[in-house]
Amino acid sequence: MTTIPIPAGSLFGLDNLPYGVFSTPGTGPRVGVRVADSVVDLAATLGDAEFARPSLNDFMAQGRARWDEVRRRVAELAAGEIPAEAVHPASSVTMHRPFDVADYVDFYASENHATNLGRILRPNSEPLLPNWKHLPVGYHGRSSTVVVTGTDVVRPCGQRKTDDGPVFGPSQRLDIEAELGFVVGTGSPLGSRVTTAEFAEHVFGAVLVNDWSARDIQAWEYQPLGPNLGKSFATSISAWVVPLQALEAARVPGPKQEPEVLPYLKEDQDWGLDIDLAVSWNGQVVSRPVYREMYWSPAQMLAHMTVNGAAASTGDLYASGTISGAGTHERGAFIEVTWGGQEPVDVAGRKSTFLEDGDEVAISASAPGAGGGRIGFGEVTGRILPAADVAG
Amino acid sequence: MTTIPIPAGSLFGLDNLPYGVFSTPGTGPRVGVRVADSVVDLAATLGDAEFARPSLNDFMAQGRARWDEVRRRVAELAAGEIPAEAVHPASSVTMHRPFDVADYVDFYASENHATNLGRILRPNSEPLLPNWKHLPVGYHGRSSTVVVTGTDVVRPCGQRKTDDGPVFGPSQRLDIEAELGFVVGTGSPLGSRVTTAEFAEHVFGAVLVNDWSARDIQAWEYQPLGPNLGKSFATSISAWVVPLQALEAARVPGPKQEPEVLPYLKEDQDWGLDIDLAVSWNGQVVSRPVYREMYWSPAQMLAHMTVNGAAASTGDLYASGTISGAGTHERGAFIEVTWGGQEPVDVAGRKSTFLEDGDEVAISASAPGAGGGRIGFGEVTGRILPAADVAG
Repeated sequence: MTTIPIPAGSLFGLDNLPYGVFSTPGTGPRVGVRVADSVVDLAATLGDAEFARPSLNDFMAQGRARWDEVRRRVAELAAGEIPAEAVHPASSVTMHRPFDVADYVDFYASENHATNLGRILRPNSEPLLPNWKHLPVGYHGRSSTVVVTGTDVVRPCGQRKTDDGPVFGPSQRLDIEAELGFVVGTGSPLGSRVTTAEFAEHVFGAVLVNDWSARDIQAWEYQPLGPNLGKSFATSISAWVVPLQALEAARVPGPKQEPEVLPYLKEDQDWGLDIDLAVSWNGQVVSRPVYREMYWSPAQMLAHMTVNGAAASTGDLYASGTISGAGTHERGAFIEVTWGGQEPVDVAGRKSTFLEDGDEVAISASAPGAGGGRIGFGEVTGRILPAADVAG
Repeated sequence: MTTIPIPAGSLFGLDNLPYGVFSTPGTGPRVGVRVADSVVDLAATLGDAEFARPSLNDFMAQGRARWDEVRRRVAELAAGEIPAEAVHPASSVTMHRPFDVADYVDFYASENHATNLGRILRPNSEPLLPNWKHLPVGYHGRSSTVVVTGTDVVRPCGQRKTDDGPVFGPSQRLDIEAELGFVVGTGSPLGSRVTTAEFAEHVFGAVLVNDWSARDIQAWEYQPLGPNLGKSFATSISAWVVPLQALEAARVPGPKQEPEVLPYLKEDQDWGLDIDLAVSWNGQVVSRPVYREMYWSPAQMLAHMTVNGAAASTGDLYASGTISGAGTHERGAFIEVTWGGQEPVDVAGRKSTFLEDGDEVAISASAPGAGGGRIGFGEVTGRILPAADVAG
């Protein structure tokens, strides 16, 4: 038996206990919990069969009461003695995508981001479109290209517009979007709704998301049906799913919503979240987005997504859209940080606008924890590989 | 042993042999093949384990050589003697959704449809947007709400715009879109492409699609990220997947593409398809869309969908978008048939624009078969139930 030392200031203390899927040279992918610098093998400790599987889906499908029970047991386990063979150094394991993604929806919930993009892309119009303050605007993304942190991203090729008509080639305006993603544990049947009050019964936890975006491909393709190939080549998520329970201490009121929202979007509870992000570009922090200013809450997003009777499913991922604070150093996409590419930033001595081959981006986040300190989301990282097949 | 009589003129002769998933009171969902008015239980006849499963996915994942081999064996079986217990009257079985849907992408490939919608929705502008003839425009839809023919559709609620701002309630402009859907059998890994020449190696077959659309919800929500709740409440597909091999006799050249497309969208083979559809509204045929005029081919759609390196997966469904011919009686959506609701059609004595509660829509299709007659897709049907929960 062993005990896990938890250093003061660890972002993975007993008030976090996020779930992920890991493997070691000796064992296939299975469910683990992160405790300080260790990963605890849940199948080997709790013995429940759903933890011996390569995704969290079977566990997540069991619902809130079961999630609460397991969290209590895991907290006891992590605070006490654990069979030594069930504890692995976090640095020694391989992390996998933690859940099978059912539907993936990406929202656009930051007023700062939507306003900035409106100013950059439509400088002579009202920056916010008329629907924006009435409903959380969103679109469906590609589930099969959601990848785990650390997965390299091949620069996408596609069509972009030039003065001589469209040309084909590697994207020249490859960007990031720093987002928070919410993972649905228990779904809802076709024809029913999830109300804002039911949010915590359905949502299992949260991950960091980097919604890689090829701005040139997107700008040419997106009318009238929205983004497609400019986004569908890769979406990266962090390896650890932070349980909703761990975010209790981070809950704050969201911004006042004016004009008043329709009744189905009203909330009795606060689901604003006091989460601080940091975006590193080749090791240098270029932005510190703040989640607490997001206009639409995750409870409102889920209520909206299902208000037409659309089914929700175990493994659904819905993301916030780019998180941008009001400050110039709080923007979650390089198109905003560099104001459409017009204001390059200094990245390790290089004037940069969009991503170059070999660049690496790491997004991290932390929030207040129940223990008085902070809890962490880990990172979502990715490195840009050169376009593979540039003939058009 | 028994033989299956195939009446002259059957749309399910030996040149069709579509696959589906059926159950009987005595057996769970499993793979069957439609022959005339019968369903042949493939697990009970061929014995291969992948046919005892409740979806086609495991079979589809095996690839073109295996699909060809099984088709040959099924054709021999259907033409000869079959154990009587493996043959069920089609009228006695329950049909299920034939495959688990991975990603669902909906294109917009009919020039007639895109032009009509442009004229209806943007009467003072060029009807086709600048990108339309350069790439097959499309968007991701919701996989979890793809349902099999015969599933009732609850009228969706949502926001729609009025002169006094947005209001919430049941959609008042509920529409259909008659489409053809293509089902991916073998996928492609992240970072690679499927070329137009590789289409038949990846696509297993085709189904009919009704992409139910709430035009009022869609019109208010869709800027700038495209349709979401106006489409995500239900998408119906036919129960029988017509194998690509069965469509050989239906292959025709598509329309000339002018301006010339970029090299990755060029084709050496004809994948236009000579398919005739019929749209029935409460039993009355109101439109006969023709597939052969579609501007973009399914091989071009798949090549475009993966040209940025997006992975394709077994069970991916991509649909053509509304199929509209040039003629006024060939339009595949009621918004076109009634020209934005301004020209009601006579449906069984009622002046109709959009769908009323209790209405039933059936879309059917047939194409030339290898035997000199025609092959059928069966139907995709759905009935509108009243909105369930109209409080807003």
